Parts: sequence; C-alpha cells; structure tokens
Amino acid sequence: MRISSNDEKEFLLKVFKIDGFSDSNAESLSASLTDADLRGISSHGIQRLAWYTSMIKDHIVVPKNEPEILNETPATLFVDANKNIGQIPGVFTTKRLIEKAKKTGVAIGVVKNSNHFGTAGFYARMASEQGLIGIALTNTRPLVVPTNALKAFLGSNAFAFSFPAEPHPFVFDGATSIVSSGKIQVLAKKNKPIPGEWAVDKNRHVVHDAEKVEDTLAKVAFSDHNDGGGVLTLGGLDEQNSNYKGFGNSLVVELLTGILAQGSISADTSKAGHHDFSQFFCIINPSFFGNVAELEKRAEWMFDRIRKIDKVPGTTIFIPGDREYKNFDQNKKRGVEIDDKTAQELRDIGSKLGVESPKAL
Amino acid sequence: MRISSNDEKEFLLKVFKIDGFSDSNAESLSASLTDADLRGISSHGIQRLAWYTSMIKDHIVVPKNEPEILNETPATLFVDANKNIGQIPGVFTTKRLIEKAKKTGVAIGVVKNSNHFGTAGFYARMASEQGLIGIALTNTRPLVVPTNALKAFLGSNAFAFSFPAEPHPFVFDGATSIVSSGKIQVLAKKNKPIPGEWAVDKNRHVVHDAEKVEDTLAKVAFSDHNDGGGVLTLGGLDEQNSNYKGFGNSLVVELLTGILAQGSISADTSKAGHHDFSQFFCIINPSFFGNVAELEKRAEWMFDRIRKIDKVPGTTIFIPGDREYKNFDQNKKRGVEIDDKTAQELRDIGSKLGVESPKAL
Repeated sequence: MRISSNDEKEFLLKVFKIDGFSDSNAESLSASLTDADLRGISSHGIQRLAWYTSMIKDHIVVPKNEPEILNETPATLFVDANKNIGQIPGVFTTKRLIEKAKKTGVAIGVVKNSNHFGTAGFYARMASEQGLIGIALTNTRPLVVPTNALKAFLGSNAFAFSFPAEPHPFVFDGATSIVSSGKIQVLAKKNKPIPGEWAVDKNRHVVHDAEKVEDTLAKVAFSDHNDGGGVLTLGGLDEQNSNYKGFGNSLVVELLTGILAQGSISADTSKAGHHDFSQFFCIINPSFFGNVAELEKRAEWMFDRIRKIDKVPGTTIFIPGDREYKNFDQNKKRGVEIDDKTAQELRDIGSKLGVESPKAL
Repeated sequence: MRISSNDEKEFLLKVFKIDGFSDSNAESLSASLTDADLRGISSHGIQRLAWYTSMIKDHIVVPKNEPEILNETPATLFVDANKNIGQIPGVFTTKRLIEKAKKTGVAIGVVKNSNHFGTAGFYARMASEQGLIGIALTNTRPLVVPTNALKAFLGSNAFAFSFPAEPHPFVFDGATSIVSSGKIQVLAKKNKPIPGEWAVDKNRHVVHDAEKVEDTLAKVAFSDHNDGGGVLTLGGLDEQNSNYKGFGNSLVVELLTGILAQGSISADTSKAGHHDFSQFFCIINPSFFGNVAELEKRAEWMFDRIRKIDKVPGTTIFIPGDREYKNFDQNKKRGVEIDDKTAQELRDIGSKLGVESPKAL
C-alpha cells in the first residue's frame, strides 16, 4: 500500500516527541526516514521505526540526550552523540561543518557513541543543497567477510558523496560491500533467491537462499555467535576479480569511523555493551577552486555525455542520484510504499502510544 | 634480471637532470619510480621512463616548469602544474598540505595541468610517515566502460588512502576500476590470458585475450578513435553484482580531479591538445581527535584480528600495504626486477644521453 509522505512525517513526528526527542530532533529524525521512503530507499525509511522503538525501550538509544562537542577548531569537530540515534548528531555535525567549510574551504567531523543514522546520502545532500561537496561515512553491525576469510568481521560501511549539479546533485550513496543487508532482507521477505554472488556460507561457498543468509546475518549482527559466512566485499567471491579492493574500501571506513572516533569497530558492535556506531563527515567548498555555477555546469555536461554513451540495448546508464530523484518526484505525488509487515508494526506502535496511524493504513 | 635500487635511482637522477629537471625535482621523480619498483609495483616504476622520455620530447611534459600556486588559504591549495610530470606538483602539494594539516587538522589540494604522477600511494604514505592520514586521487587516460555502456569513458582513476600504524602504515592504493591497465599490459607481455572478468569488447562481451584488450586500450587512450570495449568497473560485468558502485567510485574521482580542477576529464585526455591529468589530495591530522600513538595501536589491533580470521585453507588475508612493505624489504636486498624490454629501453636512453646504465643491465 501507499501512504502520503506528509502523513508519514506527521505520524513520525508525533511518535518521536512522545519518545522524548526534542522538537527539532524529532524533526530531523522524521525528515531522514521520510526522505529515504520518498527516494525509494525503503530499507532506511519508516520500516526502521520498530527497531528504533525497541532500542529506545532497551536504553540503547537515549532520545533526550543532546550531542556534546568534545573538541572544536575552525576546520574540525569531534562530537559525542551520547547514545542518541545517529540522525541527531548527524544533522548537528553536518550543519556545523557546512558553516565551517564556507569559511575554511574544508571541514571534517567525527561522531562517537552514535547509532544507526539513516541514509548517508541525507547528510551529503545537505551540503550540495548549499553548493558544497558532502561526504558521509558510517560503520555498522558486522556482516561482511574479508577477502579469503570465512567469517564476517567488517560492517557494510556506507559511503555517500554528493556534488552540486542541476537538475539534481550527484549523490552516490551505498554500502561499500557488494550489497547492504537490506537488499537481502527484502528478498527474504518476498521469498526470492539471491540473483548474484552476494553472500557465502562458512566454507565460503556462494549461497542463493536469501532466508538462510538472513539467519546468518542476524546471528552475527545481534549476538556473540559468529559461525561463519556473510556478505561479500565489492568485487565478489574471488581475489581474481579484485575483491580486495572492496575490502580496502571497507577498511578505509572502519579507520575513519570506529578507529578515529575511538568507538567500537564494526566487529564489536554486536557484543554486549557495545552498540555504538561511529560516523565521519567531510564538507568541501568548491568555490575555493572555481566559480561554483561553472563547476556545476561542467559536472552536468560530463553526466549528460555519460548518459548518452552507446549502451547494451534495453538498458539505461544512470548517474548516481538519477533513480532516487525520479522516485522522489513520483512518490511525492503517489505516496510512499509501505509493506504489510511494516503497516502492522506502525498500527501497533500508534495504538500503544495513542497516536493515530497514517490515514491509508 | 634484477638491479640494485640504488643503481636505479642514481641512473634516473642523472637522466632527469639532463632532461632539464631541477635537482630537487629530479630527486622527487627518481624517488617515486624507484619506490614503486621496490614495492613490486613495476607498472609504475622505471618501465615508465621510455614513456616519460617521449612525452618530454613531444613537449607534453615540460621539465623546467615549476608548480604555481593559483590560490592558497590556511586549509586549501590550488596548484597549476604547468605541464610538468605529476610527481613534481604532487610532492610540492603534499608537503605543503602536511604543514597545513598539522595546524588546521585537515587540508585539501587540487592540481591542474598535470600528468602521470606515479603511484598515488607515494603521496598518501608521505603523510602517514608523519603520523597523518593521507589521501591522493588522480584521473587518467580513458579506458573504463561505465555500467551498461559499450565504450570506454572513465579513467582507471587511482585512489590511495594511508593511515599511520606499525610496523608499517595501512596503505590502500589502486585503480578504482576492476584492474589497472598495467595488469593487462603485464599479461599481454607474457602472452598469458586474462583470468577474470576484467575487460569487454564493443558488444560488452568479456574478453580474455590480453593482447586484444591491450590494442583496444591503446587506441582509446592515445587517439581520437573509440570503437568500443575497455576495462570494467569494480563489480564486474553485471549490474546484478553492483558494478554501478565501482562506476560511482570512479565518478567521485572524476569530480574531485578533472571537474574541480577545471582540467580535462579522463575521456578527453586522449584528444589532441588535451594531455592534462588532474589530482586531488587530502591530509587529515588524527591528533585533533585522539592520541596518535593510541590510535595507531587501535588500528594495529584491528589489523591483527583480521589477519587471524579463519580463512580458506592455503590463502592469506593481507591488510592493504602488507605485500608492498614485504616486497620493499626483499627488493632492497635482492634488487628490483627489470623485464627484458625495459632493460633494452634503459640501455638505449642511457647511450643516447651518455649516461652509464645500471651495472647489472
């Protein structure tokens, strides 16, 4: 079914205020989830509400806590999220870095004691809406198996990069692994097999049964048990096709998040007492190198040339962001898609808190 | 055959001084090529000398030109390489950014009108030798085919990232494409087939004949002709295995180099009058976020845990940098490997300039 994105956001706002988030933090959090649903990234949309609610109940997430600045200089910011959900320190840090980068040309921020922060692209895009380049990284629960290894250790470790352009900014946003766990979850829900070389068992043999992989990932991500298997690095099964490059990209994220923030590395976020994620942000001001309107035009000219390259018949060359902005425009009109399980979860949460569910549910 | 790295560097120094490089620029350039050979990255070592020599002869590279600062602020640097080879502005920019980042916590630099700059890892490592995080990017000649496309457009677009650690820094350094053109060159020279899904023809069918791919790449890279085919993005042939992520990584490099520098994008460096590459550098000072010795220890502890994960029997889990530092130690003692074709080229260059070739040749 579909519900209007306005109804979605209104419902989330009410729920988050009751949960104890401040008005402006409830606004950031609702905006992040609604935005993901509008862009067709439903894995990071309102379907996360049940999980967020359970983390609040378990005091893993503490809604009333505000981000605390540990160290600040003209071009750097180190923030303690104080166990709030990642969108709160994420928006706080990005806004502050944008103001810094306008003056210094570049600014970086590191956030510790954080949690899931929605889509990384949300923060990168905040920068590009102001003519800046945005970068956002996060570590995650462990689910990715390094090159040649039999057990999951790395997070899916998202990387987002945006560059200002018209009609929409370039927004590259995704897990550094071959796929995110969300993609496998969706197939498992729909009882469909995994089409590609995405995941392996404890012997590093490719597994196509999505439900089986889901079971493995849940065990590794939410318990101390790690019996082997998990998602592959970008590049797939074999060293021969350079899967060590996907491994390397993933390690870069581990170093700039869990290591630099002195928080848990992905491998340890599943252990009792370690639920913290860390994030890294970088904002670059292109006006220190050229006229921004002209730089945007140059980027658009490159994208247009790429879209027009001869292609395999029946296919399209999408520039990162093309799909998401198209979804955004369509879903703004027709509403965002909600699966049955999520609809039931929303009704339950609403009735428990005395908040009316979105009309269409 | 093998020659001592000292002999290699001495030979290069003499040649580059005769070519018209200043003493300190000849030193940077010789250091970059010798370092690559020591690390076993011979594709970026002395075998490039013949190519560099021909670019100097054709006035594509102008050895006497010094880098010129176009814009400088406390955290940013915009440099015109003035058509010198990329190592000259590369070392100049990295050194200056290191001094900046020590004060500001982060500094970025963009170089335009540049050329091949050797291995990207060379600059990243310069930062980590001083306890800093280093990032270096370059665009290249066009050789990479975007997702779904039939023709090469993107460069192999190198990305290097280093993080201080003992016994050696973490150094991730490589093309963002599935492989660099150098790997295919080596197989073609040895008359060996391509083992993986690395390259395609004009119909986007995988090609295993290295010589055939070499011909395609040479045509695209050094002429106005682009008949289709080229190297794949990381992720391989099919969208199903997320090759659009490799495509996205490659586009990030295009945006931060050719676009931001207002130089040629990779696709145009093969066109008459467009031989320029652009580079991007970023140095981060981890001491703005924690005690560097402790951060290094945390990184080493993570690397050690990863090296020890259960693995496929007979394989090793290498942390990026492990192989190159091992090669470095071995080649320092036994000398660096030189193939027969390169040996002949070096003898020719030496006799033409009146420079004695390295003893073992």
